[in-house]
Amino acid sequence: MSEQFDVVVIGGGPGGYVAAIRAAQLGLKTACVDAFIGKDGKPALGGTCLNIGCIPSKALLDSSRQFHNLTHTFKDHGISADNAKIDVAAMIARKDKIVKQFTGGINVLFKGIKGNAVTPIAGFATLKPGKVISIKGHDGNVAEITAKHVILAAGSAPIELPFAKFDNKLILDNAGALDIGSTPKRLGVIGSGVIGLELGSVWRRLGAEVTILEALPDFLAAADADIAKAAAREFKKQGLDIKLGAKVSKAEIKGQEVHVTYADATGEQTLVVDKLLVSVGRKAATAGLLAEGTGVTLDERGRVVVDEHCATGAEGIWAIGDCVRGPMLAHKASEEGIAVAELIAGLPGHVNLDTVPWVIYTEPEIAWVGKTEKECKDAGIPYKVGTFPFAAVGRAVAMNETAGLVKVIAHAETDRILGLHMCGANVSEMVHEGVVAMEFNGSAEDLARICHAHPTLSEAVHEAALAVDKRAIHKAN
Amino acid sequence: MSEQFDVVVIGGGPGGYVAAIRAAQLGLKTACVDAFIGKDGKPALGGTCLNIGCIPSKALLDSSRQFHNLTHTFKDHGISADNAKIDVAAMIARKDKIVKQFTGGINVLFKGIKGNAVTPIAGFATLKPGKVISIKGHDGNVAEITAKHVILAAGSAPIELPFAKFDNKLILDNAGALDIGSTPKRLGVIGSGVIGLELGSVWRRLGAEVTILEALPDFLAAADADIAKAAAREFKKQGLDIKLGAKVSKAEIKGQEVHVTYADATGEQTLVVDKLLVSVGRKAATAGLLAEGTGVTLDERGRVVVDEHCATGAEGIWAIGDCVRGPMLAHKASEEGIAVAELIAGLPGHVNLDTVPWVIYTEPEIAWVGKTEKECKDAGIPYKVGTFPFAAVGRAVAMNETAGLVKVIAHAETDRILGLHMCGANVSEMVHEGVVAMEFNGSAEDLARICHAHPTLSEAVHEAALAVDKRAIHKAN
Repeated sequence: MSEQFDVVVIGGGPGGYVAAIRAAQLGLKTACVDAFIGKDGKPALGGTCLNIGCIPSKALLDSSRQFHNLTHTFKDHGISADNAKIDVAAMIARKDKIVKQFTGGINVLFKGIKGNAVTPIAGFATLKPGKVISIKGHDGNVAEITAKHVILAAGSAPIELPFAKFDNKLILDNAGALDIGSTPKRLGVIGSGVIGLELGSVWRRLGAEVTILEALPDFLAAADADIAKAAAREFKKQGLDIKLGAKVSKAEIKGQEVHVTYADATGEQTLVVDKLLVSVGRKAATAGLLAEGTGVTLDERGRVVVDEHCATGAEGIWAIGDCVRGPMLAHKASEEGIAVAELIAGLPGHVNLDTVPWVIYTEPEIAWVGKTEKECKDAGIPYKVGTFPFAAVGRAVAMNETAGLVKVIAHAETDRILGLHMCGANVSEMVHEGVVAMEFNGSAEDLARICHAHPTLSEAVHEAALAVDKRAIHKAN
Repeated sequence: MSEQFDVVVIGGGPGGYVAAIRAAQLGLKTACVDAFIGKDGKPALGGTCLNIGCIPSKALLDSSRQFHNLTHTFKDHGISADNAKIDVAAMIARKDKIVKQFTGGINVLFKGIKGNAVTPIAGFATLKPGKVISIKGHDGNVAEITAKHVILAAGSAPIELPFAKFDNKLILDNAGALDIGSTPKRLGVIGSGVIGLELGSVWRRLGAEVTILEALPDFLAAADADIAKAAAREFKKQGLDIKLGAKVSKAEIKGQEVHVTYADATGEQTLVVDKLLVSVGRKAATAGLLAEGTGVTLDERGRVVVDEHCATGAEGIWAIGDCVRGPMLAHKASEEGIAVAELIAGLPGHVNLDTVPWVIYTEPEIAWVGKTEKECKDAGIPYKVGTFPFAAVGRAVAMNETAGLVKVIAHAETDRILGLHMCGANVSEMVHEGVVAMEFNGSAEDLARICHAHPTLSEAVHEAALAVDKRAIHKAN
């Protein structure tokens, strides 16, 4: 008979492995099945996030940022050096080492749970009726296990354009763009979303000519318009050539070049690059996940249909993270994983999608929580706005990080915070005071009256909150 | 007749100038009297903080940190360069430029208030009975103005040791240590408080041998012991030689050296240095502030006695910031300034001293809000603790910033957050989510259930809050 678990999690990314750990902490016999194969050819937990997403990109962003500072801003401090060079292979090796440390660390975490452990299983899982999980191992053998509860955490995969198939030599997805062996002279990027901007920034800082082709007429339409505008100004200064309203129709490999054909307002254009990153979005990775008759349904975009508690409607089958509705963010997946594990154990569990923070790790960073000004306007919510620029913040000037601003949006009548939007250094950390304030239904006046340490960048949050009521101290109101 | 103001603020530091701006915003006729003379020989608003404190130290900390990274950590990223040098004069000039930008900016802010302005007056103010303010100008002339309300914001000054008088050539106060023309070979520091650690770090990073003599047996006794321990370990690695229980009795200038005599457990010792920074604390700068008969009283430490609303007891006379009880922190002074201005205008105003955050801008940074574990123990408050190390945080590893930890202290019965303590990169910003949570009387479970962006350093706060209940995800509980 096949082994039975209380919980089988399909997918070992930040949704799945976290759900598995929490389930095991709660005393449930838990397995976590994952198909990913790491760069060393061995199974690697952690999913896209740890292997070819959040973590490796941040490693490269940090390395490339240090190099950029050395070659661009150090002179402001009186610092000089000759022959500044970056060894791309060493930079990539550092990244690979960090990835291995964290993906390997998950196995250690699986074993380290008090009085319990998560069983990791390498292979591709398909859910069959009766909560039977069929697992095709990397050796081709198929095994079956059964579960009282199944958590589908299959994650997502990059969308491929039919005319620009990934070869990860010249036409790259996110994984390929994290593993370029030397700085390309010309890098083309299709799509100006998070991945395109982050990886475009990495290679730009190392000297590549980077051209980003964005089909939409607006830059970073998901972010608040004031933030997107401030960010676009900085990216332009950095030499990122972002072309809006550029609709790509063709990408042809000619020798060692890619010739990209796109149309803009003035007609058809050609861009010739040495590498092309296609980052036009991601889709739920649900292909092959479900056999017939499981009772689980997919929506028109291939996502598993779930309710607000991540229940699929089929008894004992749950789904979380990138393969369901909501933002494709690692921390949203993790929170859903914890909530579902707790629900399975009979505890309360819930994720408030309205207070999930967003971060883009460019320079300056972009972060927000809650509604944009446009979303408030479109929803007919009366609102007021306060903003404050980092150029007027002492710490920012001391750090040479004067780009960007903080914007607080509050309800015009109740003063309740509706959104906190930021573009600037370290805003990835600063956004959390907004998340906490919003979870407590805080008002702009609350943030305005809360003491903020001097000198910190967070003073911009304080001042923007004061500015909502036209009483900022360090700017004219 | 002398000119009458609604509000006269004595002192133009972060308490005084902020109080003046807020009073003027509220329609009050306001003057701000300040005696400080900047490096260029002209009156400079901003007090210690902007001229010779927070802002210039952060400028030097940032410059020296970049240089340290170049010479120590860049190789980890594959970055190389030859002949790394720092031009100390250029570094100091950058700092001076930043100081001038911000101190000059206060005059612009004073003029930019809608429908009103603050009148800046340069000179040394003495409060006389009847709320008459006598001002001795820098030309020696004396003028008088009167006020309906007076806000005393005289700030503080470094405590001088009788046997080690400041000459700011060899024996330095904070101002002197911000203006050393070239890196001293050997820097001695008496006192391991904020100023000693920050300025000791600056010159250590630039190559000085730094010895810190601390009279107390414990390092950083104000901070939580776990945080102090983690920080001490890092400072030692950086080559800061911190000698505890070292009681200094003499400092003699011999030629271009200072010979410091101190006693430790093993007997009398001598330390020979090229520069000696004395940073043994600060005292309220109230000398000459008050004439006889104002009705304002000073305590045994020379601080103006005030109630919880900064009222002195003498009608219409208030005092704020470093010259009153409470922590000597710029942001505490600013908040008191705003609160008093609002109280004068008939609005509610209050500062919660229990949620004022503390920051030390070393590498790693140290930040906290609320009670330390020792304070909870001493007060007999039942508590529980959760900690999480940055070494287990993906972003920290990606950034090469794995030192330190986060510690959450919560009430054992109610789970209410009693303190949040941190040592690590960027914790100066991260502490604010704790300040906000504590202002809302939040529990550790609140922080544990609030979504934190991945990958950020703030995930350590999330995990430490989970660890309070022994359910951290990324470490064994």
